[in-house]
Amino acid sequence: MNKSIFYHAGCPVCVSAEQDIVKLIGAANVEVVNIGQDRGRIAEAENAGVKSVPALVTPDGNVLHINFGAAMADVKG
Amino acid sequence: MNKSIFYHAGCPVCVSAEQDIVKLIGAANVEVVNIGQDRGRIAEAENAGVKSVPALVTPDGNVLHINFGAAMADVKG
Repeated sequence: MNKSIFYHAGCPVCVSAEQDIVKLIGAANVEVVNIGQDRGRIAEAENAGVKSVPALVTPDGNVLHINFGAAMADVKG
Repeated sequence: MNKSIFYHAGCPVCVSAEQDIVKLIGAANVEVVNIGQDRGRIAEAENAGVKSVPALVTPDGNVLHINFGAAMADVKG
């Protein structure tokens, strides 16, 4: 893969970080996934190493947890 | 300003995040500052809202705290 994936859950911290990340790396270079709505992708995010949202998984597979919106446990509810 | 500033303190978490950020947004678009060494810039980072390192201050002035290496209090020692 050569796109980053930005996982978030719609929280205010998430939305703010999303705007910053899209502006920094370009909308074409990042897939934005709201795992609060698209719950089928929660497991994928966890497998990638995402512990909290918002988080950016780089094309190299590294996870950058950005600020802190919610723990995965809270997203799963 | 139109460059982002990446503040770090040389910690392993910082170095890893630095490599990811530079790869994502391009070395030309980010100034990397090691406030563990360049201590004169600690106040500048704090004024920008940096609470822990590594952190990226965007051209818009927003602070993205990325993962967690060290609190500013620890950097100041």
